[in-house]
Amino acid sequence: MKPIKVGLLGLGTVGSGTFNVLKRNQEEIMRRAGRAIEITMVAVRNTERAKDIVKGEVEIVSDGNLVVDHPEIDIVVELIGGNEIAKDLVLKAIANGKHVVTANKALIAKHGNEVFKAAQDKGVMVAFEAAVAGGIPIIKALREGLTANRIQWIAGIINGTTNFILSEMRDKGLDFATALKQAQALGYAEADPTFDIEGIDAAHKLTIMASIAFGIPTQFDKAYIEGITKLEATDIEYAEQLGYRIKLLGITKRNEAGIELRVHPTLIPEKRLIANVEGAMNAVLVQGDAVGATLYYGKGAGSEPTASSVIADVVDITRLASADPEHRVPYLAFQPNALSDVNVLPMSEVFTSYYLRMRVEDKPGVLADVTKILAEFSISIDAMLQKEPAEGESRTDIIMLTHQTQEKNIDAAIARIEALASVTGTVTKLRLEELS
Amino acid sequence: MKPIKVGLLGLGTVGSGTFNVLKRNQEEIMRRAGRAIEITMVAVRNTERAKDIVKGEVEIVSDGNLVVDHPEIDIVVELIGGNEIAKDLVLKAIANGKHVVTANKALIAKHGNEVFKAAQDKGVMVAFEAAVAGGIPIIKALREGLTANRIQWIAGIINGTTNFILSEMRDKGLDFATALKQAQALGYAEADPTFDIEGIDAAHKLTIMASIAFGIPTQFDKAYIEGITKLEATDIEYAEQLGYRIKLLGITKRNEAGIELRVHPTLIPEKRLIANVEGAMNAVLVQGDAVGATLYYGKGAGSEPTASSVIADVVDITRLASADPEHRVPYLAFQPNALSDVNVLPMSEVFTSYYLRMRVEDKPGVLADVTKILAEFSISIDAMLQKEPAEGESRTDIIMLTHQTQEKNIDAAIARIEALASVTGTVTKLRLEELS
Repeated sequence: MKPIKVGLLGLGTVGSGTFNVLKRNQEEIMRRAGRAIEITMVAVRNTERAKDIVKGEVEIVSDGNLVVDHPEIDIVVELIGGNEIAKDLVLKAIANGKHVVTANKALIAKHGNEVFKAAQDKGVMVAFEAAVAGGIPIIKALREGLTANRIQWIAGIINGTTNFILSEMRDKGLDFATALKQAQALGYAEADPTFDIEGIDAAHKLTIMASIAFGIPTQFDKAYIEGITKLEATDIEYAEQLGYRIKLLGITKRNEAGIELRVHPTLIPEKRLIANVEGAMNAVLVQGDAVGATLYYGKGAGSEPTASSVIADVVDITRLASADPEHRVPYLAFQPNALSDVNVLPMSEVFTSYYLRMRVEDKPGVLADVTKILAEFSISIDAMLQKEPAEGESRTDIIMLTHQTQEKNIDAAIARIEALASVTGTVTKLRLEELS
Repeated sequence: MKPIKVGLLGLGTVGSGTFNVLKRNQEEIMRRAGRAIEITMVAVRNTERAKDIVKGEVEIVSDGNLVVDHPEIDIVVELIGGNEIAKDLVLKAIANGKHVVTANKALIAKHGNEVFKAAQDKGVMVAFEAAVAGGIPIIKALREGLTANRIQWIAGIINGTTNFILSEMRDKGLDFATALKQAQALGYAEADPTFDIEGIDAAHKLTIMASIAFGIPTQFDKAYIEGITKLEATDIEYAEQLGYRIKLLGITKRNEAGIELRVHPTLIPEKRLIANVEGAMNAVLVQGDAVGATLYYGKGAGSEPTASSVIADVVDITRLASADPEHRVPYLAFQPNALSDVNVLPMSEVFTSYYLRMRVEDKPGVLADVTKILAEFSISIDAMLQKEPAEGESRTDIIMLTHQTQEKNIDAAIARIEALASVTGTVTKLRLEELS
């Protein structure tokens, strides 16, 4: 059978990894795919740098349109990232009847519905394993491995930068700014780290997983997103004393009222395997009604780990390229006509547990005032930690873990607590998940 | 499209789980599969018990041949287990042009080559996700998710019974016999636990993973198998003092000389995520050249976790049932004509690190004698632990961790050490893997 022809858009970190892995393992990949896979054209901005990588084996162009319009290319691999140019090229590739592989989480999270509709109309495949959790085959697990299950929830460490920063903060007692600088110096964080540290990257990935898990359209704009920039070393330390680790989790849950879709720093019991995922590693914990909990762990970024997922998608498409579209796995696991538009809950409606830290005067009655307010809001306390004031200090920290309550309820209670004369400043609120 | 028809062979733990999950989640599964999935016939020995489960919705027969011969059945799901009857029925189903799903690890590990050959000739699919690690979609990950990679090694906790026993031994300081009795009382071990505790079950699963990872025929008879029955609580404790946990691992590696295929108790650094997999849970760590290490964790047994994998296979087959065979994923990940019969190494040829425990007289020169022998065999010591003799004792334990050496080399050194007058009894040898 003649080789399947692949055009690459972009030859940066992931693009060069894809080129190199495909070349290095070509014989073994062909033994799996049953057909040779050839990169025949690469579109890049910097054609000089590209020459060093492809060494004359592939045609290099500077206009992506030449790739998506090329009549002999079967699969377009989009590794440009970002929104506008990538989206235009992907839609054009689809319109030209090409299958598409992309690592672009923003594209799928924000424009997935439009992209899949176009692909469905043209009968082509769009695969995006590399868009979530780098080299971990989590899309395949959710979309194919767990099809028997009613998925109940997913909780994932799906941003390596923030997990690296949080690991360093805990390990070395660093504050956020110092840990961020270290991460930048080591190449784990970009010069402009906003997308990572503000939780946007994680929310893109979470949005995609939620769609596949629950059979709903992608709804990035409804995600609640809170990053790690305001997290203090002191809370990491208190959490540890209470037996918890703080991780930036993407959490999506299905309950009777709707779908939760939220990214925020989260306390999780240190005994959970996922609490022990350190450094830049990623892990996704999935709860299904039949299988129970399964966890998927690996490198969430990097040249060759991400290339591993890109190429797996190319192999999948190679196997199914000439098959009838009905034999293919649906884009979002559920058949396009079987998606259901379930409500995504605003954060104020979500039920979870909480970690509260407040600075109080060390005198009788303060704790009684605080607990009375919590009782009025029917919030029960699961654990408490009160430190002796430091030498010469008249104030001290109280830390409380609550049982489950609704976000708007805890917020109302916090407002009342902050109004107490004996409480100084604001109350620090973090969310806590048992993940069991 | 009309429903796909499924016939079940067996309605025990996994069979009833499969029936119940398919029924409970039928609407959601159909939304994924694009087609209804119907169990139309069940073959069981005890038809009375079966009636309680299927409640008149399915035809119950006592002869499996009626299922595999039934003209309207598309997929035969074999959940009888064991060898002879299961094998005959599976081969007959294939001969009749049915697709087959099986949870039977012994069947695939021992007769996989014959089964796949027959299936290939008839153009039908044989799927066996449930045969390895219960509900964890590890077969799919290896076969499809990691196709870009040259797999370097796999190390798995793939038997829940033994992991439960080892966890109890460590947690509570129990000896093997007591922990086994507890496991039996709690239903984690069978009345005849031989298959589990002797490592045979793990070796079946490892054999299957090795074939998929490396593209080799199944070669169960060449696996090295050592169970946990001789493991002493004292070694678990010493290992812990040195920063290691002992797990029954299935390990398969590819190196220049051939394939390693071995099941044995193994020391692993406690910092590794897989070292913290406790109780009856399973986990598989896979090292690929592009993706690096990925880990897959979940329930390795039980009614609904295993059913989860059975049904995922049924959904996969439903999607591809009417597709051309060339569009399907190969049975063992590699195209049938692209398997390579790489040599499986005998254990004596394997290189690994070792834990040695010996009982010695507490007098000058003993350690010098032992280390001199190790030096003669070019075995270098990575760590050592020597305890003061107990009150009134003239003997003490020496524990050594070695760097990598070949198994036949360490065995020769041990024979020399055991011949020393100052060494009492035999030297306990356990293998150690860094898994990095």
